[in-house]
Amino acid sequence: MAFYLKIQTDKRISQENHYFYKKYHFEMDNVMLRQETIVAPATVQGQSAIAVVRMSGKETFKIIKKVFFPLKKIKFEDIKTHQLLFGVIKNQSGELVDEVLVSFFRNPHSYTGEDSVEISSHGSPYIQQRILELLIDCGATYANAGEFTMRAYANGKMDLAQAEAVTDIIAAQTEASHKIAMQQMRGRYSNTMKKLREDMLHFMALLELELDFSEEDVEFADRTQLLQLLNVVKTEINGLTDSFKMGQVIKNGVPVAIIGAPNVGKSTLLNALLNEEKAIVSDIPGTTRDVVEDSIVMNGISYRFIDTAGLRDASDEIEQLGIERSYEQAKKADIILYVVDASLLNVQTLKKNIDNLLSGIKKEVECIVIFNKSDKSDINLSDISLHENVKMVSISAKQKINLTALTDLLQQHVNTTSLNQQTVVSNARHYDALVKAKTAIISAEEGFALNVPTDLIAIDIRTAIYHIGAITGQVSSDEVLGHIFGNFCIGK
Amino acid sequence: MAFYLKIQTDKRISQENHYFYKKYHFEMDNVMLRQETIVAPATVQGQSAIAVVRMSGKETFKIIKKVFFPLKKIKFEDIKTHQLLFGVIKNQSGELVDEVLVSFFRNPHSYTGEDSVEISSHGSPYIQQRILELLIDCGATYANAGEFTMRAYANGKMDLAQAEAVTDIIAAQTEASHKIAMQQMRGRYSNTMKKLREDMLHFMALLELELDFSEEDVEFADRTQLLQLLNVVKTEINGLTDSFKMGQVIKNGVPVAIIGAPNVGKSTLLNALLNEEKAIVSDIPGTTRDVVEDSIVMNGISYRFIDTAGLRDASDEIEQLGIERSYEQAKKADIILYVVDASLLNVQTLKKNIDNLLSGIKKEVECIVIFNKSDKSDINLSDISLHENVKMVSISAKQKINLTALTDLLQQHVNTTSLNQQTVVSNARHYDALVKAKTAIISAEEGFALNVPTDLIAIDIRTAIYHIGAITGQVSSDEVLGHIFGNFCIGK
Repeated sequence: MAFYLKIQTDKRISQENHYFYKKYHFEMDNVMLRQETIVAPATVQGQSAIAVVRMSGKETFKIIKKVFFPLKKIKFEDIKTHQLLFGVIKNQSGELVDEVLVSFFRNPHSYTGEDSVEISSHGSPYIQQRILELLIDCGATYANAGEFTMRAYANGKMDLAQAEAVTDIIAAQTEASHKIAMQQMRGRYSNTMKKLREDMLHFMALLELELDFSEEDVEFADRTQLLQLLNVVKTEINGLTDSFKMGQVIKNGVPVAIIGAPNVGKSTLLNALLNEEKAIVSDIPGTTRDVVEDSIVMNGISYRFIDTAGLRDASDEIEQLGIERSYEQAKKADIILYVVDASLLNVQTLKKNIDNLLSGIKKEVECIVIFNKSDKSDINLSDISLHENVKMVSISAKQKINLTALTDLLQQHVNTTSLNQQTVVSNARHYDALVKAKTAIISAEEGFALNVPTDLIAIDIRTAIYHIGAITGQVSSDEVLGHIFGNFCIGK
Repeated sequence: MAFYLKIQTDKRISQENHYFYKKYHFEMDNVMLRQETIVAPATVQGQSAIAVVRMSGKETFKIIKKVFFPLKKIKFEDIKTHQLLFGVIKNQSGELVDEVLVSFFRNPHSYTGEDSVEISSHGSPYIQQRILELLIDCGATYANAGEFTMRAYANGKMDLAQAEAVTDIIAAQTEASHKIAMQQMRGRYSNTMKKLREDMLHFMALLELELDFSEEDVEFADRTQLLQLLNVVKTEINGLTDSFKMGQVIKNGVPVAIIGAPNVGKSTLLNALLNEEKAIVSDIPGTTRDVVEDSIVMNGISYRFIDTAGLRDASDEIEQLGIERSYEQAKKADIILYVVDASLLNVQTLKKNIDNLLSGIKKEVECIVIFNKSDKSDINLSDISLHENVKMVSISAKQKINLTALTDLLQQHVNTTSLNQQTVVSNARHYDALVKAKTAIISAEEGFALNVPTDLIAIDIRTAIYHIGAITGQVSSDEVLGHIFGNFCIGK
């Protein structure tokens, strides 16, 4: 029985793979996968020590041979994979373009799985453009965004979830987002998905067993057993979809709003928090931080302060933030820092204001009331009772008193301790696929409950398998691929 | 006699080299040349496909061994120079930092001449910073600007003029500036300097011959012969210093001022010229142009329009350019485009204005009078006679009539035809050294004329030899080296 099920499961996996293979090759050949040899700059354009142009495809060595003249006399056929050669690039008139180092990668031992080279020239935009023009003149084609990685996917060097992790890795600015992207690229995430899919295929095998033997009235897999298995899969998917909120927080940071009446010290608080963090960021020259938003990184998680443009430069005296604007900020936040002046405290008014604020916000949000200017007041927080879920902290932003208590509260918002063990979903496409799979499973459960014929339930199960398979790209469509790789940078 | 002179010249070169060796090693060891293993990002920071960190120095392989784990099992001792290895970088807690490609270069087969590696990671500023921190934690030191190239110079991989060409290559934005920088880096320029220095050393040998045999009253080298040789060297140096103007034009572009009364069509002309050029610049994505100044590139030379901020956006109607401002612009320019409205022409006034303008400018400047709005006028340029050196052209900027005649006139300003044969001085330090050498030679000539004792004249000749030697770095000082390499980018 167990052996029969194994065969059935394996047969199912093989059928799925065959389906994938056909679908994939049909679509990729026709639309997405060009046969051309592609070329693009791989480094950021600008003046620097070195800059890299990469080229990949069947004609790579034929093209590089026309323009690259190694110092060491060597036949191009004799160049090994992962060999570096120093030499010069000359244009078709024989004029020197640059002295370069060329890295050779022979199919399949390259990023794309094709013959590839990386040309390391002086970091001059002028030279980069000349090299690109020259390679294009010699037969290469300018690469689309993400085309190198798409070829890596097409040639089986990585699955779709791993390919998607590549952009996440490049974009990651914090320890935690780097970690989950890295785990995803290294295949741990894909393995979780594959296990999920195998569970589903096993379930499908059980269903088919029932269909095959239905006339013989042999109960290989009774309904209870089937429902139990389905429940296990659903629980797994639930765990994954639940992790999406954390995944989003890790990937995009926690939005934090600082609100409160004029003159309570909001901008002083913001500056105190930002300065706190600047002491942590190591000051290696040449590395720049994204300065679009005010944010601090604590314990690998980024906390993004919303709409602080007005707060950053304005002194408290001239700041006149309207109540509507506070509400707008609060609605966009996961954490609200509600600042009050402890020396001018009216607990009744405060309570009313906070109740008003929180009742106006539909979603779950964490509210921290900050009693600022604690040095000028002798309030005791234990005497104050506010809304049940509201946290309180007493600080002086100006005197930098008790700021750590506040940053501790912020950090409690995200629990990253399980990050090394747990598989975290951070990609919206994957989340969407998991939710669709879950919907199909719930539909199947309902089918069982209503005694719907097994072959109809099988449709739901196939739908669930399809969506799980779409995550790792075992099934895929041009539209999805175009969307995924369109978000890549040129040269990747 | 010839043989004796050869020996004397060789002896002199050998003495000079010995002097250089001592001086150089003393100074470099003490101040400029650190023994540390240095590390720096080599590519522009930002999100991209790949980014490169380079490391160089004695400890390079020891350090990389601690953090890099190649996929292929290989002993670090067995890694050949110019070999690439794929693997992972792990931090000291064993956490994955990135998947990388590491290029290995074994002393002396590297840019610096030392053991070096280049680590090609995902193009993420976060990852770059982590890798840099890790290598520094493991014993590397953050590199100073230009320190890699300084080591290349110190280890005899290139001379000082070649090292200086590296920054010129990176900064070059036009064909001509790229070409002279490339020739300089490839050593053609240095060869010219070495020939010049050998001529001087030959002269020195002749002088010493005279000194050695002065008591015997044998005239090995009569004064006429000496003066002739000195004149040959002076002529060579003159040719080089004369080329500096062209070198500056090639390196920095030709400053062009567009001046004229309101409403004559200055901004229309500027836009017409800029658009003309945009059609030429190829449109490969990912390459950006420097937009700080309005400029066009023709025949490999950049023409920079001065102070066009007011012209670019303002329509002619609201433009009210004061006469003083016109003068300021004209003084900064090598070419003045003096625009007049051909339909409202008063030749007498024009003549007076141009004479005024040119007499107010001290330096040599090319003035082109542009009779704009030619479509609304029937003037005949052959009827008009202005200042002798003033060129004239009749165009319509709006209708784009005869613009080519104008761009042809602009291009005549720089003659680049001899660029492939001629050695061009483009570096202000070299120009300064050549001028000092020339001054010393003139002083020597005067010495001969006044019958100054030969040993005193020899001091002038040594001074000239010193300054020529400083160009290629055969003699150098910390101050000069600090200044030269301080202008490099980090990582080069």
